[in-house]
Amino acid sequence: MSDVDLTARASFSEWTMATIRYGDQDPLGHVNNAVFSTFMEQGRTTFLYPFLKAIGDPNIDIVLVRITIDYRQELTFPGSVDIGTNVIRLGTKSVTFGHSVFKGGTDECATTGEAVLVFFDLTTRKSILPPSDVRARLEELLKG
Amino acid sequence: MSDVDLTARASFSEWTMATIRYGDQDPLGHVNNAVFSTFMEQGRTTFLYPFLKAIGDPNIDIVLVRITIDYRQELTFPGSVDIGTNVIRLGTKSVTFGHSVFKGGTDECATTGEAVLVFFDLTTRKSILPPSDVRARLEELLKG
Amino acid sequence: MSDVDLTARASFSEWTMATIRYGDQDPLGHVNNAVFSTFMEQGRTTFLYPFLKAIGDPNIDIVLVRITIDYRQELTFPGSVDIGTNVIRLGTKSVTFGHSVFKGGTDECATTGEAVLVFFDLTTRKSILPPSDVRARLEELLKG
Amino acid sequence: MSDVDLTARASFSEWTMATIRYGDQDPLGHVNNAVFSTFMEQGRTTFLYPFLKAIGDPNIDIVLVRITIDYRQELTFPGSVDIGTNVIRLGTKSVTFGHSVFKGGTDECATTGEAVLVFFDLTTRKSILPPSDVRARLEELLKG
Repeated sequence: MSDVDLTARASFSEWTMATIRYGDQDPLGHVNNAVFSTFMEQGRTTFLYPFLKAIGDPNIDIVLVRITIDYRQELTFPGSVDIGTNVIRLGTKSVTFGHSVFKGGTDECATTGEAVLVFFDLTTRKSILPPSDVRARLEELLKG
Repeated sequence: MSDVDLTARASFSEWTMATIRYGDQDPLGHVNNAVFSTFMEQGRTTFLYPFLKAIGDPNIDIVLVRITIDYRQELTFPGSVDIGTNVIRLGTKSVTFGHSVFKGGTDECATTGEAVLVFFDLTTRKSILPPSDVRARLEELLKG
Repeated sequence: MSDVDLTARASFSEWTMATIRYGDQDPLGHVNNAVFSTFMEQGRTTFLYPFLKAIGDPNIDIVLVRITIDYRQELTFPGSVDIGTNVIRLGTKSVTFGHSVFKGGTDECATTGEAVLVFFDLTTRKSILPPSDVRARLEELLKG
Repeated sequence: MSDVDLTARASFSEWTMATIRYGDQDPLGHVNNAVFSTFMEQGRTTFLYPFLKAIGDPNIDIVLVRITIDYRQELTFPGSVDIGTNVIRLGTKSVTFGHSVFKGGTDECATTGEAVLVFFDLTTRKSILPPSDVRARLEELLKG
């Protein structure tokens, strides 16, 4: 696990916002656990996709291989969340994102997560080194 | 169908916002049709639930009996939507909401919809007249 | 509206099954209304997609322009649904599907629906006549 | 991590089935990662809820505190999944479920997961010891 405190807003520089939907709630009257995977995916894609798109190589993809989510506090509709994303580890072919979902506009951390992704060549179906400009951007994020 | 032009922003006074999620998209690369039901539900619940809660009668509910949605323009991630909600018909035991989902911050109408709901007694499992203060609020909305 | 009785199992020859998920339920403890759009979509795609795929023309698509759903009976987890699909109207460039969602293994009809779709050329972004073998299949379904 | 091989069908005695939905797919044309949380939740609830219901104490709940999911193979619509559930660790106030999602009717393991849950008193909002008959059932499952 990372040394970065994922429950602290100060650990994140990349932010995106999402609104909670009535249908996100399950019979327990709170946001269902699976929705937090969706929030974290939104955090990753929002700031990573522009780089992947810029590369413009339709053969290169980045795929999720493992996610761990810690549920700390429940959330309810209506409201919003602030989703923090950072890079907490960088391997040769993989990157680990740190995620945190805060109750909108507060310091209350609802969930934290770590997501491991690998770069992938869609033609050979094998993991690959990330393009250099994507790696440069990830290193920048890793330093905070 | 209603005389109200549901594709025009001017037809709505009640607004709520929702963010589009990566996972809202289907293999066609646009927001899946079922998500618009969720957006419209958010519009209804956001401004109706405070009234139902204020009544504080756990036996009274309002249930959806019919929805019609017209798909006019596709939406993609990332982005947001502005959801307009109004009242276009008021029966003795039913109310018809008009819904419109606009591409966030624009006049581009992606979908419109009409939702018929009835007031319901959870004990007797029968439709009922709405409480008078809820009806008063709905009449106010009907006038625009 | 159609003359076909969408609440009767006998009106359908095309069937697919879906399992109800815990997360399909909303705070009211029943399957959320948006999930029925997903069930009906499953019915359409299950038997239409093989034909579209067989054509193998990536420029041809079929898009949803309107859906109406009538909610007749609530459903709860756990359980399954039997989804009936038929063709109730056939225009030159459009087709209307009839949908029915039954509580699994019973004659209890939970929802019925009608979905209007148009054939679409992805290059010109205009509606088109359906390919002849797709039309032949739809006519066959229209006759029951 | 557990000694149990979660990629092997033989490791599981409790099974439930789910159908894949068109809308489960994201723009990459495969089942979106968040859906696997939903599949695993279905596995847990299907065989645990009867026990919780039998207790009939509305103050007792079991809440998810951590989930880890390993993505091993992608899935596509149409099709189904076989969801295996077992108990891999049992603490005084917590239980860890092992999960595996197989491509329907095959030995191909798409994802595995571990979910930690704690028993919870809804009145005091604190973790508690599980009721003795629930614990007995969990011990039985732990032995396989």
